Amino acid sequence: MRTLQVALAERSYPIHIGQGLLDTFPLAEQVRGNQVMIITNETIAPLYLDKLQSQFSQIQCDTLVLPDGEKYKTLATLESIFDALLEKRHSRTTTLIALGGGVVGDMVGFAAACYQRGVDFIQVPTTLLAQVDSSVGGKTAVNHPRGKNMIGAFHQPRLVLIDTDVLETLPTREVAAGYAEVVKYGLIRDPEFYDWLETNNPRLLSRDSELMAEAIYRSCENKAQVVADDETEQGNRALLNLGHTFGHAMETATGYSEWLHGEAVAAGMVMAVSMSARLGWLDEGLESRLMALLESWGLPVAVPKGMTAAQFMDLMALDKKVHNGQLRLVLMKALGDAVVTADYPAAALQETLEAFCGV
Amino acid sequence: MRTLQVALAERSYPIHIGQGLLDTFPLAEQVRGNQVMIITNETIAPLYLDKLQSQFSQIQCDTLVLPDGEKYKTLATLESIFDALLEKRHSRTTTLIALGGGVVGDMVGFAAACYQRGVDFIQVPTTLLAQVDSSVGGKTAVNHPRGKNMIGAFHQPRLVLIDTDVLETLPTREVAAGYAEVVKYGLIRDPEFYDWLETNNPRLLSRDSELMAEAIYRSCENKAQVVADDETEQGNRALLNLGHTFGHAMETATGYSEWLHGEAVAAGMVMAVSMSARLGWLDEGLESRLMALLESWGLPVAVPKGMTAAQFMDLMALDKKVHNGQLRLVLMKALGDAVVTADYPAAALQETLEAFCGV
Repeated sequence: MRTLQVALAERSYPIHIGQGLLDTFPLAEQVRGNQVMIITNETIAPLYLDKLQSQFSQIQCDTLVLPDGEKYKTLATLESIFDALLEKRHSRTTTLIALGGGVVGDMVGFAAACYQRGVDFIQVPTTLLAQVDSSVGGKTAVNHPRGKNMIGAFHQPRLVLIDTDVLETLPTREVAAGYAEVVKYGLIRDPEFYDWLETNNPRLLSRDSELMAEAIYRSCENKAQVVADDETEQGNRALLNLGHTFGHAMETATGYSEWLHGEAVAAGMVMAVSMSARLGWLDEGLESRLMALLESWGLPVAVPKGMTAAQFMDLMALDKKVHNGQLRLVLMKALGDAVVTADYPAAALQETLEAFCGV
Repeated sequence: MRTLQVALAERSYPIHIGQGLLDTFPLAEQVRGNQVMIITNETIAPLYLDKLQSQFSQIQCDTLVLPDGEKYKTLATLESIFDALLEKRHSRTTTLIALGGGVVGDMVGFAAACYQRGVDFIQVPTTLLAQVDSSVGGKTAVNHPRGKNMIGAFHQPRLVLIDTDVLETLPTREVAAGYAEVVKYGLIRDPEFYDWLETNNPRLLSRDSELMAEAIYRSCENKAQVVADDETEQGNRALLNLGHTFGHAMETATGYSEWLHGEAVAAGMVMAVSMSARLGWLDEGLESRLMALLESWGLPVAVPKGMTAAQFMDLMALDKKVHNGQLRLVLMKALGDAVVTADYPAAALQETLEAFCGV
């Protein structure tokens, strides 16, 4: 087991990464009160719920199984979590445990942020995406029909438990979607890691467990550093959103059902890199390197069929990175050097969108 | 105008108190972005909305009028606020302005806590209750059918603007309900203020404007000190809940419609004082002094007809002050000296409930 620390003063917490931790890590010792509720979804429950629940035989342990999918990441599902907590009389000293991917983690984290104005929660991410990104850093949210993650809170977990064995049961498409975020860390701040990913791509593609664990560790390390520097996204934390503004627009346009989040991010990163090259900020070679890497994982590098530039502009106007009417984008100055900026010619954005949409 | 500061490091903010501030205070200067949404209810809108809105002619100023009443303090109403914000494309730099009583303030504050993971908000309280209590300190929430304020957040306003002139249009019953919280500050931590309130009761009852302003100032001063010492209620902030555990049970039992919050708190404070006397912690004389003071304002000092001790026990078991199964209560050791404790004989609670319920 390897352990990283997310350094946030009194809200600091560890990320434990290793094989078989769902069996071996003494999670019950980490709970402060005498109540827990494990919240998961119908896909994950048959795989890991019993195993996790068996750790809490000494205290009140309730479980809640949600429907699976981004389309259930809503205020209505959130309300069903509150209903269950109140029905089972969970107090302010309860601990919520999120067992699942990013959707479960984001919702359970937000429920923990709001229930009785804030209770403890623990992240047990079961997808690569959640392990390398969403479970670390305390961003929690639900979606609104008009935009992704529009309603949420910053609420840090007490700890993150990453069992790398769970990737064995994860569909290839899900692994690839998570991998898009792994690649992201290389692009925005860790060029050496990006090179390492390219060099080791064949073995990573075959899911070599040692190399995958290393990729997860280095991703979490990058994420933890960014979050420690800027917990509530006043500045550089926004760099983590490379490709996300384009990606969110694609997810919203396709109703959160056609593409996985990481797939939208993959295509969005290609758009951001392409726009950076168009601005003359970046060697054009990176766009084709990135496309080759993403395509080897089966990730999309083009926009969903039928989407128009006008539709992008409309959806991106609602992005959380709009400040006083200006759309800020994460763009690239070099491999490993991303910036958040609204200082670009509007034409460059328009041209990029038209090039990708063909309209 | 008098100004108090709530000392919370980078979240510090001023409370401005004075006559006619809705006309004279330059509120627009306090807004950081170029969007505001004023959220109020259908009772307050005809009285003050135009006046407030006219201050924001230079920037995007939207308004939202909610139905009036505690029964609308729900997740569903919260969702309607998010709908309006997204429809009008409010960004993360928007400012929400809560114009109304405690219900509006609690909901708008919670909406501000969650919208895009947190935006600015300003409290413009228009009831005595909101002016002396709920608008100060950053507690925000909505109710759940199973319990009051069960879903919420700590989110401090940027400032609180208290125009004491608004009390002139406030129904007597509403003024009295707010007055219960004024009395509370004397009971829990300011015996000199309690004596002052008794001495000046005739002039306060006739709503002498100078004395009312003084009572509001001293209430806010007490509240600000408590909040500065314990923002997230890890300890002494819970003293502010004197009478509230009993009161919330009565509000829940009556569906949040029969009694105003302050009325439930009044009866709840009498119960807490009575139980403290029963425990021998407190001179029995205070209970009759308190009852006389509250009754002079027309406030209830008994429980709603038909409520049983069993019903109280059941509803109080869901209180946020239950820790690991133990119900902590705010009780009194002397006038001006309250404690939060679970260290009392269960029989004393049972006997107190039976004495009040007659069953």
